Amino acid sequence: MVVRAAVAGASGYAGGELLRLLLAHPEVEIGALTGHSNAGQALGSLQPHLRPLADRVLEPTTAEVLAGHDVVFLALPHGQSAAVAEQLGDEVLVVDMGADFRLKDAGDWEAFYGSPHAGTWPYGLPELPGGRAALAGATRIAVPGCYPTAVSLALFPAYEAGIAEPEAVIVAASGTSGAGKAVKPHLLGSEVMGNMTPYGVGGGHRHTPEMIQNLSAAAGQPVTVSFTPTLAPMPRGILATCSAKAKPGVSAESLRAVYGKAFADEPFVDLLPEGQWPATAAVYGSNAVQVQVAHDPAAGRIVVVCAIDNLAKGTAGGALQSMNIALGLPEDTGLSTIGVAP
Amino acid sequence: MVVRAAVAGASGYAGGELLRLLLAHPEVEIGALTGHSNAGQALGSLQPHLRPLADRVLEPTTAEVLAGHDVVFLALPHGQSAAVAEQLGDEVLVVDMGADFRLKDAGDWEAFYGSPHAGTWPYGLPELPGGRAALAGATRIAVPGCYPTAVSLALFPAYEAGIAEPEAVIVAASGTSGAGKAVKPHLLGSEVMGNMTPYGVGGGHRHTPEMIQNLSAAAGQPVTVSFTPTLAPMPRGILATCSAKAKPGVSAESLRAVYGKAFADEPFVDLLPEGQWPATAAVYGSNAVQVQVAHDPAAGRIVVVCAIDNLAKGTAGGALQSMNIALGLPEDTGLSTIGVAP
Amino acid sequence: MVVRAAVAGASGYAGGELLRLLLAHPEVEIGALTGHSNAGQALGSLQPHLRPLADRVLEPTTAEVLAGHDVVFLALPHGQSAAVAEQLGDEVLVVDMGADFRLKDAGDWEAFYGSPHAGTWPYGLPELPGGRAALAGATRIAVPGCYPTAVSLALFPAYEAGIAEPEAVIVAASGTSGAGKAVKPHLLGSEVMGNMTPYGVGGGHRHTPEMIQNLSAAAGQPVTVSFTPTLAPMPRGILATCSAKAKPGVSAESLRAVYGKAFADEPFVDLLPEGQWPATAAVYGSNAVQVQVAHDPAAGRIVVVCAIDNLAKGTAGGALQSMNIALGLPEDTGLSTIGVAP
Amino acid sequence: MVVRAAVAGASGYAGGELLRLLLAHPEVEIGALTGHSNAGQALGSLQPHLRPLADRVLEPTTAEVLAGHDVVFLALPHGQSAAVAEQLGDEVLVVDMGADFRLKDAGDWEAFYGSPHAGTWPYGLPELPGGRAALAGATRIAVPGCYPTAVSLALFPAYEAGIAEPEAVIVAASGTSGAGKAVKPHLLGSEVMGNMTPYGVGGGHRHTPEMIQNLSAAAGQPVTVSFTPTLAPMPRGILATCSAKAKPGVSAESLRAVYGKAFADEPFVDLLPEGQWPATAAVYGSNAVQVQVAHDPAAGRIVVVCAIDNLAKGTAGGALQSMNIALGLPEDTGLSTIGVAP
Repeated sequence: MVVRAAVAGASGYAGGELLRLLLAHPEVEIGALTGHSNAGQALGSLQPHLRPLADRVLEPTTAEVLAGHDVVFLALPHGQSAAVAEQLGDEVLVVDMGADFRLKDAGDWEAFYGSPHAGTWPYGLPELPGGRAALAGATRIAVPGCYPTAVSLALFPAYEAGIAEPEAVIVAASGTSGAGKAVKPHLLGSEVMGNMTPYGVGGGHRHTPEMIQNLSAAAGQPVTVSFTPTLAPMPRGILATCSAKAKPGVSAESLRAVYGKAFADEPFVDLLPEGQWPATAAVYGSNAVQVQVAHDPAAGRIVVVCAIDNLAKGTAGGALQSMNIALGLPEDTGLSTIGVAP
Repeated sequence: MVVRAAVAGASGYAGGELLRLLLAHPEVEIGALTGHSNAGQALGSLQPHLRPLADRVLEPTTAEVLAGHDVVFLALPHGQSAAVAEQLGDEVLVVDMGADFRLKDAGDWEAFYGSPHAGTWPYGLPELPGGRAALAGATRIAVPGCYPTAVSLALFPAYEAGIAEPEAVIVAASGTSGAGKAVKPHLLGSEVMGNMTPYGVGGGHRHTPEMIQNLSAAAGQPVTVSFTPTLAPMPRGILATCSAKAKPGVSAESLRAVYGKAFADEPFVDLLPEGQWPATAAVYGSNAVQVQVAHDPAAGRIVVVCAIDNLAKGTAGGALQSMNIALGLPEDTGLSTIGVAP
Repeated sequence: MVVRAAVAGASGYAGGELLRLLLAHPEVEIGALTGHSNAGQALGSLQPHLRPLADRVLEPTTAEVLAGHDVVFLALPHGQSAAVAEQLGDEVLVVDMGADFRLKDAGDWEAFYGSPHAGTWPYGLPELPGGRAALAGATRIAVPGCYPTAVSLALFPAYEAGIAEPEAVIVAASGTSGAGKAVKPHLLGSEVMGNMTPYGVGGGHRHTPEMIQNLSAAAGQPVTVSFTPTLAPMPRGILATCSAKAKPGVSAESLRAVYGKAFADEPFVDLLPEGQWPATAAVYGSNAVQVQVAHDPAAGRIVVVCAIDNLAKGTAGGALQSMNIALGLPEDTGLSTIGVAP
Repeated sequence: MVVRAAVAGASGYAGGELLRLLLAHPEVEIGALTGHSNAGQALGSLQPHLRPLADRVLEPTTAEVLAGHDVVFLALPHGQSAAVAEQLGDEVLVVDMGADFRLKDAGDWEAFYGSPHAGTWPYGLPELPGGRAALAGATRIAVPGCYPTAVSLALFPAYEAGIAEPEAVIVAASGTSGAGKAVKPHLLGSEVMGNMTPYGVGGGHRHTPEMIQNLSAAAGQPVTVSFTPTLAPMPRGILATCSAKAKPGVSAESLRAVYGKAFADEPFVDLLPEGQWPATAAVYGSNAVQVQVAHDPAAGRIVVVCAIDNLAKGTAGGALQSMNIALGLPEDTGLSTIGVAP
């Protein structure tokens, strides 16, 4: 099988990571690469780590350029995917790495993004209940946000098993690549090194409704989410610390059993051995997910910590994993669980 | 006034930061400096940033060496302060930067430290209700832990004002100096750079009972604390994200009013202007505390974020601030609110 | 004595560091603060670490605003200082932290900056031979570049003593604040963390002619300089590794003697004890300079390594030190040699 | 072809990186893994990023354990490889990642390592003149040091082409993993973050004679090397800035031509396009080598900058590349030139 793949938005961090992974995917042939302000430039100057593609020149993001591929990945700013996707036929698999088609509720979309809702596509988190069925044979995939990937994987087992109260409290630290390659003063190296700072506190982050959507579906009832993201002084990685009040009768053992069962057959998610805690460094550059759980009887809460690479499993790796499923390839084709450490 | 100060444990991070601040304190004259395994060495090789003290040689930590000073600071491993303090008369102000005398409840001490409780000294967090009164004229001071400093400042106003339910959820990121200078594999630079990882999850961190003690006192009722500390890839700084369910009727305005009032006259604590969030880089090397609040009506919670320098306000600066009060000096003598940034 | 100081360019890194130091200077009263695109904004949002100045509003950079001060510091982009300085009378001390008045040779200026030469002002590196005499009573001061500060201090003793051949090879690592607060893609945190990369290789860096000027003056003959700057993943600090062939007869002892003598009476420069090497962390936030020397008989070279804080001694601290001399104040007024570490 | 490989010293950074690469090598089957103090422990707790090997238990480093493999990699402390290798037959390929068999001159070995010389094995830097011929069919391979890898690749073309004077000056920055996993105070995260500091200045670093050996061989005459290594605040990567006086007649064009020719057919080494400079981040985790050259006519020098990943091409990747050659496999089997960035 040869899958010809185009990437729209190849100069950014998500696009670059996707290309890094596509280069190692045995069934994929890399086709058109497009950019916006960078169209006409060679990729070598924009993504110097992608040596085999150094001489490839970015084309403009148009339907003509993107036509004729088996898969088209969209790594575009919010709101731009629908127009492009409409021009690509249903025989093409379109994988949107942006936010446009993640939310089911149009009201949520409009409240958090301030624009008309483009629609809802099959959601690219295979580990969720029913996740793989929704992706098999799909021709449109909405790749989850990086934070919702980590948080949903951390908490869906507890909610599916009914062991947690429906009020989740989440504090997550993200590496700076999560903010993208856009040049903003607070993302300068001088500002972020040696610094931890929160943003979007109090419910304002756009990933919040996506978490609520996933956790509520797992719980079968509405779940509220208090989400505080923080910017950490590292290029990659998300560490999500998630907790909720334990339902009566929950113990350390029953908690661990729930998670052991949830991830027993997952190719990318590990419930770590007792005593070992997730570390973003351990999943650096890989599609692996590290999860660990604790029961705090004094506070009456369960605490679940999850580490992912925001660009890999949190974006480009998750996209490829879902592509594999949609195309009927083995789910882990071209995807590694081995981190680059130290 | 000339205050002659001795420092026991001058080779560690807490001792080094204290000396940095003492050198800038206009009323203090630095006396004996002691160490354990480093006794006999010049400070210049151990603390190369403390240039004016480069030629001072560490003496062993004995009562004879520490005698004859107005103030003795103890930066010793847990469990060693009592024996030293007993040999120092009541006319000497002893400031313990370790944990030994922080907890009021002997059972808590024994549960978390596994040794007999040494006692309880006046608690060195002046901003707490009644905090300054307890320190005025004191001859013994227990300096708070770094996490409890940040967390207690973040949440006591809400509990004192009765606007938060008594179940606090706290996730805090700390720079590596919080783990001290002890040489452990997981603290190697190769391990911590680019890495976020939690520890002591589920109630196991020794600072938890200290937070409970402070917040329960402010609330006038027992408060539970779910505390998850994380190690962040930076040398200094604590960012504590603290939340609790809001009591009925709380609004963004009333929340802000509570905090504005609580910190109105505080020399070191700032409730930041709306829209600006605490950043550890902004308080680097200073005694300043940045606090910001948010009300999340969808989740029904208040969120308070607090940034301090763990070595300064979180340890050595807090110690000096309390010393100033105990000795009747202006509270901010020798203490700066200006961070070193970028 | 009360020195009223204005700062033009208060929103950048150099301006911010200067304000941090001015706030701690006992004889200075901070007057007007100006900005360009940031005029009208409160300093609190631009420099959140400068808490006592949080409510000060930036004014536009005009002669009217800057008039009526004893000292005016200019932290402006290259080429803008002359026009401002002309409008300020000779009774005002103008301290230019930019490059405009550093070079004596108009041809050098034009070759490296591509614009007409504005002139030459007394050079603000007091430690150079004749440096203090040139600054006493001066009403105009050109603050050296950060790299030339480190390199000139590292090598002038060898050239003044005639123990080194006049061909210097210098490789220096700088923290990212040396590149300023301008928002450029390669300065994003995601790009600089975990990364070392050179720039301006092969003689192209604008600080090269300034080094040549200083070293040639010390040597009494033309010195060539091979200078390679590199960008290091840290916010502050310069580590300059400088070497030259040793003249015949030089030994480790004679080399050390030359440097010991050169810095014996310097308040800010330390020749470190044998076996200890300069570290940028040890001078973080301070005006201290660490120097160490080695003789490599196999390679026939002397190697001198120098560490400074690029924003402190390398810019704002050096500016204040020179101001103190020009105004007849003790040279170290308001300047610390104590680094903030770890 | 199935190559059964054992790794002695699997718990350290070199061993861990080798395992990461071996896991991706299509012809290799990982056999015995050994450790010293860690024998008996599962790899999952020591190398948490190597998920597929998490349950593998380290065995003691003995001849019995290492017997029966096609290849044995030794990642042992200096001085221990000879004893192990002697017990392994000549039909086994032994790849020593330590220093023991790198130097040809016994006197050099004794001067720098202070112990008897174990011998000299074929040298694992295929890019050197005659490098591949020496490795084809070899049963013993000495993997070069990380610094000598970068420096030799940077300068051998100039010396082979006779365009540089035989006095090289090198300043290199290394990530902290180059110092290994041994727990030493100066390698603590608190010490290395935000810090640049040199070590082994003045000719003392043990990699110096190895550089001299390689460059002298390329030049056909003795080359002196002034080498200053510095420790940079990043986990991985070496940036080597190398220069030498240009022989008469050298120009930017002729310099570039020499390097273009030297690396034209190299699978892992890139002479970057003009204007682009090596960056350690671009080769992170890969076997790629980035090189750029400059001619500085004013200083009369050529400057060559080289970036590698010290653990990959600088150690484990280089070892695999040489193994491939020795075994007759395509040289790039299992080795990527794609960096993990940002």
